[in-house]
Amino acid sequence: MPDYIKHFHLPSDFQFHRGGRLNDAQLQYETWGQLSAAADNAILILSGLSPDSHVCRHHRDDHDGWWEFMVGPGKAIDTSRYFVICASSLGSCKGSTGPASINPKNNRAYRFDFPDLCLQDIANSNVLLCQHLGIERLHTLVGPSMGGMTGVALLQQHPGFCRHWLQMAAGMVSPPFSTAIRSLQREAIINDNNFNRGFYSREDWPVDGMKFARKIGMLSYRSAEEWNERFPRSLKKVPDHPFGIEFPVESYLEHHANRFIHQFDPICYLYLSRAMDWFDGYQYQATRDIANPLSDIGVDSALIIGTKTDLLFPTWLQQDVYDLLKKADIDCDLVITDSIQGHDAFLVDELCFSKLVSNYLSAAV
Amino acid sequence: MPDYIKHFHLPSDFQFHRGGRLNDAQLQYETWGQLSAAADNAILILSGLSPDSHVCRHHRDDHDGWWEFMVGPGKAIDTSRYFVICASSLGSCKGSTGPASINPKNNRAYRFDFPDLCLQDIANSNVLLCQHLGIERLHTLVGPSMGGMTGVALLQQHPGFCRHWLQMAAGMVSPPFSTAIRSLQREAIINDNNFNRGFYSREDWPVDGMKFARKIGMLSYRSAEEWNERFPRSLKKVPDHPFGIEFPVESYLEHHANRFIHQFDPICYLYLSRAMDWFDGYQYQATRDIANPLSDIGVDSALIIGTKTDLLFPTWLQQDVYDLLKKADIDCDLVITDSIQGHDAFLVDELCFSKLVSNYLSAAV
Repeated sequence: MPDYIKHFHLPSDFQFHRGGRLNDAQLQYETWGQLSAAADNAILILSGLSPDSHVCRHHRDDHDGWWEFMVGPGKAIDTSRYFVICASSLGSCKGSTGPASINPKNNRAYRFDFPDLCLQDIANSNVLLCQHLGIERLHTLVGPSMGGMTGVALLQQHPGFCRHWLQMAAGMVSPPFSTAIRSLQREAIINDNNFNRGFYSREDWPVDGMKFARKIGMLSYRSAEEWNERFPRSLKKVPDHPFGIEFPVESYLEHHANRFIHQFDPICYLYLSRAMDWFDGYQYQATRDIANPLSDIGVDSALIIGTKTDLLFPTWLQQDVYDLLKKADIDCDLVITDSIQGHDAFLVDELCFSKLVSNYLSAAV
Repeated sequence: MPDYIKHFHLPSDFQFHRGGRLNDAQLQYETWGQLSAAADNAILILSGLSPDSHVCRHHRDDHDGWWEFMVGPGKAIDTSRYFVICASSLGSCKGSTGPASINPKNNRAYRFDFPDLCLQDIANSNVLLCQHLGIERLHTLVGPSMGGMTGVALLQQHPGFCRHWLQMAAGMVSPPFSTAIRSLQREAIINDNNFNRGFYSREDWPVDGMKFARKIGMLSYRSAEEWNERFPRSLKKVPDHPFGIEFPVESYLEHHANRFIHQFDPICYLYLSRAMDWFDGYQYQATRDIANPLSDIGVDSALIIGTKTDLLFPTWLQQDVYDLLKKADIDCDLVITDSIQGHDAFLVDELCFSKLVSNYLSAAV
């Protein structure tokens, strides 16, 4: 394991939003750049569902991270200026404690004994990590996709903890269409015989379920517009058997889904996926008896970015976050990009997203 | 079987577009109204993938058809004025010959021995039916969804056979996004162990595959906008087991998918679904060496209707059909509706679609 991979032991017992508790849990995280003496230059990145803590390279020979174009020396999130932190989500299978981790109580994997996981728990564990690193207030909180909703959870539970907020491809809540897609992904995994109520093994892995779940997800990551340009009508191969793979878009789904099968743990996927559907940033309003669920968050400024072609988090969601921030008298901007890469635009449309983030951070002082 | 259900025996052998042949094939069809002495008032309806020939009631005590609001005495497609015909698609399991029908040669179901089916075959069989009924030229060809593309196939193969054309929720071809959705539906059915390479039985039905295929399809039939209005955020039930059904949209999918399982034959579904993805109305251009794939169709007028929220056949497809018709100097209109019911709008948005069809037919003389 490279020496830049670090682990933070969460205080025992760590309490979950829905009531569960966990002992000896840890977060795997990475940092880039130097924390200033005043500890006022920290940027926390909250990731989407599947990425780990490896946002970008630590040195020339390192392997690429999931947001390589965005973070690094001289890049939009400039690690020669900011101290950047990213942790693998609690509940994931990427070095942080999750349902596939070993329960120290009985030396067996938690599986469904893992506490009900919410985005609030991922948010809280990140705040504890920041405090452990000597940070009492973040310069900027950055969250794309699931990380954008985790950001809402963090801001609501820790008012004043972030000076600036950058949310992308997200909203206050998942719309029913996105929940439908994710519920089918979970169903595909659970119904795979090899899933075996969570007692699968490396040898009897729910390959078909994971593959199919990924294909369903891929319907929502890009956009129909992008696929029109990408897959010519005429290119069809003769399938090996009736109803075998024949259309270019089928090969594409097959190829990418095959790569995903062993990249993520099935039960961790279920937990994180459900956490996204459970999250409701409007509920906070009821529990605190306030009129605006973002009125208390205490940020100095915010930038909300959406993309016209995003099927998972359509633009009315970003408009709604923006409207709430405006009503709360928070200095904020809303940008809806024309990117054709749909939900994934923040990972792919480098020029557009680099510029937006760079401009925002230049002004966020 | 009600006496309005009729059968037409296709001439033997019926030749398929991709080269197969079939003996003793039949179409199940229904008609409404009276054919005029000049045989010039016939309207042929080409259905979507799953409906049968029962478009609307034949008498007061009859059961509702799939387009009850649209067709009948005094309705937009007025059966007191027009002679209306609709057949179950060749290849389907609704009384017309399909892969689940018995092959007279060996008294066993065709299954994968059924010839490769194309929309061109469905079109040709419908023309033969019309000719059998004494119709040499249709007043109007009406086709929503798959029937809209079958309409393109019919017009291209039988220039001059239709005076007027009404296409809804369709295009010249399926875009990759729609093909992706349908390919996942086919995969869900084929991968069900009970599918058994086509040798399933009533007792060992591919229930899970059919159910899952329907759920995937349902992602594309309505729209995210409609679901936002339909499924409130807050209504969640406590699931019977971890990751059981919990969200309103999940219950909705489960309920409708359960109703579909035995409504369609799995292997027929595969054949029709693939036929949609195979169809390419632009190819005609290459085979005939003409610049415009709709220049030869010989219609007097056309109305092309699309819906803003249609995910399966987005509006650029209807715009393209319209542009081709205009270039071919055909008198035509394009209407893009604001219906929020997505692809299904033509089945649900009664007021809007009745009016469009009624106005068009009034002018189509």
